[in-house]
Amino acid sequence: MASVDERIKELQDKIKALKVAKQDASKEVEEMKALKAQQSKDKKDGPAGFQLKVPKGTIDQKPAAALLRKKIFATLEGIFAKHGGELIDTPVFELKEILAGKYGEDSKLIYDLQDQGGELCSLRYDLTVPFARYLAMNGITSMKRYHIAKVYRRDQPVMSKGRMREFYQCDFDIAGTYDPMVPDAEILYILIEALTALDVGEFTIKLNHRKILDGIFELAGVPADKTRAISSAVDKLDKLPWADVKKEMTVEKGLDEKVADRIGQYVGLKGKGREVLATLQGDKELNTIASAKEGLADIALLFDYLEHSFGVLDKISFDMSLARGLDYYTGIIYEAIVEGSAPPSATAAATPAAAAAPAKGKKAAKSATVNEDGVDESTVGVGSIAAGGRYDNLVNMFAEAAGSKRDKVPCVGVSIGVERVYAILEQRRRAEAAKPREKETDVFILSLGKEGLLPERMKLARKLWEAGIKAEYQYKAKPKAERQWAQAADDQVRFVAILAPAELEKGVVRIKEQGVVREAGQDNGEEVSLDNVVEYLKARLG
Amino acid sequence: MASVDERIKELQDKIKALKVAKQDASKEVEEMKALKAQQSKDKKDGPAGFQLKVPKGTIDQKPAAALLRKKIFATLEGIFAKHGGELIDTPVFELKEILAGKYGEDSKLIYDLQDQGGELCSLRYDLTVPFARYLAMNGITSMKRYHIAKVYRRDQPVMSKGRMREFYQCDFDIAGTYDPMVPDAEILYILIEALTALDVGEFTIKLNHRKILDGIFELAGVPADKTRAISSAVDKLDKLPWADVKKEMTVEKGLDEKVADRIGQYVGLKGKGREVLATLQGDKELNTIASAKEGLADIALLFDYLEHSFGVLDKISFDMSLARGLDYYTGIIYEAIVEGSAPPSATAAATPAAAAAPAKGKKAAKSATVNEDGVDESTVGVGSIAAGGRYDNLVNMFAEAAGSKRDKVPCVGVSIGVERVYAILEQRRRAEAAKPREKETDVFILSLGKEGLLPERMKLARKLWEAGIKAEYQYKAKPKAERQWAQAADDQVRFVAILAPAELEKGVVRIKEQGVVREAGQDNGEEVSLDNVVEYLKARLG
Repeated sequence: MASVDERIKELQDKIKALKVAKQDASKEVEEMKALKAQQSKDKKDGPAGFQLKVPKGTIDQKPAAALLRKKIFATLEGIFAKHGGELIDTPVFELKEILAGKYGEDSKLIYDLQDQGGELCSLRYDLTVPFARYLAMNGITSMKRYHIAKVYRRDQPVMSKGRMREFYQCDFDIAGTYDPMVPDAEILYILIEALTALDVGEFTIKLNHRKILDGIFELAGVPADKTRAISSAVDKLDKLPWADVKKEMTVEKGLDEKVADRIGQYVGLKGKGREVLATLQGDKELNTIASAKEGLADIALLFDYLEHSFGVLDKISFDMSLARGLDYYTGIIYEAIVEGSAPPSATAAATPAAAAAPAKGKKAAKSATVNEDGVDESTVGVGSIAAGGRYDNLVNMFAEAAGSKRDKVPCVGVSIGVERVYAILEQRRRAEAAKPREKETDVFILSLGKEGLLPERMKLARKLWEAGIKAEYQYKAKPKAERQWAQAADDQVRFVAILAPAELEKGVVRIKEQGVVREAGQDNGEEVSLDNVVEYLKARLG
Repeated sequence: MASVDERIKELQDKIKALKVAKQDASKEVEEMKALKAQQSKDKKDGPAGFQLKVPKGTIDQKPAAALLRKKIFATLEGIFAKHGGELIDTPVFELKEILAGKYGEDSKLIYDLQDQGGELCSLRYDLTVPFARYLAMNGITSMKRYHIAKVYRRDQPVMSKGRMREFYQCDFDIAGTYDPMVPDAEILYILIEALTALDVGEFTIKLNHRKILDGIFELAGVPADKTRAISSAVDKLDKLPWADVKKEMTVEKGLDEKVADRIGQYVGLKGKGREVLATLQGDKELNTIASAKEGLADIALLFDYLEHSFGVLDKISFDMSLARGLDYYTGIIYEAIVEGSAPPSATAAATPAAAAAPAKGKKAAKSATVNEDGVDESTVGVGSIAAGGRYDNLVNMFAEAAGSKRDKVPCVGVSIGVERVYAILEQRRRAEAAKPREKETDVFILSLGKEGLLPERMKLARKLWEAGIKAEYQYKAKPKAERQWAQAADDQVRFVAILAPAELEKGVVRIKEQGVVREAGQDNGEEVSLDNVVEYLKARLG
């Protein structure tokens, strides 16, 4: 095996060199692929040379999980519809150029379809860019839309925390020109409503504003060409201590130390209520910067709506360290964090004042929690469970790039990380004793006696189905009684309808309710006429 | 433009030749791509060189359409759950080798993901192969599962008939070893239930059995290596007359003419009721072939269940010309056809007896119905609206290929073509006058007077949302009255809640019901106390 590994490395190096020289390396590539194929064959493959698995970073959803997700979606759709949301769906892949250039450094995580002779396409990375494309393409200037669908990112997966390569997003966005901060307030209200209804536990919404951040950078003296890079560094303050972030800014990204320190005076500010806002509004120097002043005015108006009209201000933490990676945000930005789901190092020093204290958890020993991608799962919290912001220029940027001049279509929206919600609810459910149901059957039709009564069971099933009752029976002419009872118990079916020759002659069926303790002598269930059995069951099922 | 076209053709021919000579043609490919890019730029692209569109063969689902599809899914899920179906979901792409070799000639229609350094993957082509992989992977021997999800085929699209490259399938399959034909009967019952509930109009289910077809081929003397090809020819009898099919068998596929004629004596047999079955059961020669005899016994048993237990035999047409393309079917096969949805040439001669008559419609003039792919849409019916069959070997074939020996897991299932159902329902809806609703809002909160009353509207909205009532208001501090009334009307919102200064002082809001004709003097709606408004609206909404 060692010589095969060595040969592979040899070939990889040779191929790199060849590519640099722009020469065709197909023979070497073929040989390497053949060797790799042989290698995995030797390891664990079957005769046909493949393994029975799903692609890395993806999962099948088994029935209990699929049913739980369906309930999560139903809860969210109900909330979205309450607020006048309209449902849309878009194709799972877009033209490659639609997605190009929208995701900054994350663009390398996009899945491309192979060039098979037609248009070049890529799997969608989120639901926001498709929405902007949809608005621009259809000339729509105002819309409240929701979209629940899977997106694709070639990331390092951490399956236990719900970080996968294929995962659901649930987005609600409001597009259109309205009075300031009103739709922004409603989006935040919807997010709070959703996380409350999903029962994810205590949560906080970190909130900031791009214009305030831009103002702080301007005040501190950050060169324009470094804004994006410094923003990205600030955003790491939820995982790294200030000392590390400052080092990244100065050493890696070449920022002047004085400028970094000035930034440091602001990005430590965070808290619920209006204190941070008051501090910033009282900062004379900051208020000489126009964008900071506008941003602060927006926040003040937003807080009024959230407090006096919606009564939800207590969920908001105004947090100067929240920067978010994406370039297209132009106004408020926010992230919802669930208690106990944040990564451990988020509790480490994130302010300059505490910078002296050494970072905890940084040198945790590699343990059983390190997965096959080298990621230590114990240091990964679920992290943010939802996020979003205002993005005013994305739609008309699309329209212009496609050669059609349009007015701005301002947008604000939120994306709820369903997989992370699911990971939390699933962890909680495992702690409970009850096994989750995988199907919804209400009546199991069972036969006693050696004739099996298959045609009669099928006829009764048909009668129940026609009345909308969920019913099953075993696909056996002469099923064993114990096996039928076992199936009804395993599937946690509430009612058993017992057919037996004697009762059938009388035109009755016996209905027994499972899992109900009765007094002695009352265990035999109730005899119900076949003419009435539908009414009877409908009444009992409620 | 002509010289660019010519140069492109030149380059294409040259590239073909080069490929044959196995020489690297990258320079020519680059030049051709650059020319093509210039060509489309010249035509219609914007400055960034791209068009705002979705990929060929895909569509966005706009709100009215998305809502209608959601209703179709809800109807189907309700039926599947009634029969004890368990929901699963699988990744949108599978390992390339999982899909390889499963789809015969259609394998060229599979979308591949680009090789980006990891596992090679392809977009799923149907939901059956993923299900078989799921069963084999998890060692499951019995399961009733449903799955509603999109699949991907690089076909020639005919959008108006619902033939797209990305489209939903709704599958229900029963896996497991049971007494013969019982699950088969229930699957057909479910299919009939579903098409009835979806209200697609009159439909017929064409039914056949692979063992009977195999028996006919054996009796006629079809060589084993030609079975697949001859099967595929027989399957075209729904679109081509017998003369053409026979020609394909003999001329193209090299079958002896006597053998083709013998086949021709059977494949014209079709009809409802038990006549065809009786004819075949009385055919002494056919019954000397073991597989034909087994197949006929299966059909006889199936018909008994369908007629006496489920009462649905009248929907079935036993049709010897149904062959289906897929290799993995081992028992019954079926296809549901909606009246008026079959392609026009299906009415042409499909039996040897009528073979003398010339084929109709074969030389229809190219007309306005020819789309940009050269497909004459008027000759394309919606075709089959659902299809399926029994496939007993697929699961253990997977298990064995992956090196794990397993017992057979027999399966039978049906796949409902939701897009085709949608195309039919949508065509019907367009004939109706009513514009479909795109949102579900029940109450529109409107303000009169110059103050705008935005905080009060937001407070009332919150009150209604907390009670689960779907409510909206305009995101404007001082909205114009006419525009608010217009929005309530456009969105077909049933109730308008009117806030005005005088009423607010009294602590009341006026509720008006839209679209209801009242007697003169009764147009002003009802005054409701703000303390009671939730109860009042809940009662009115029912």
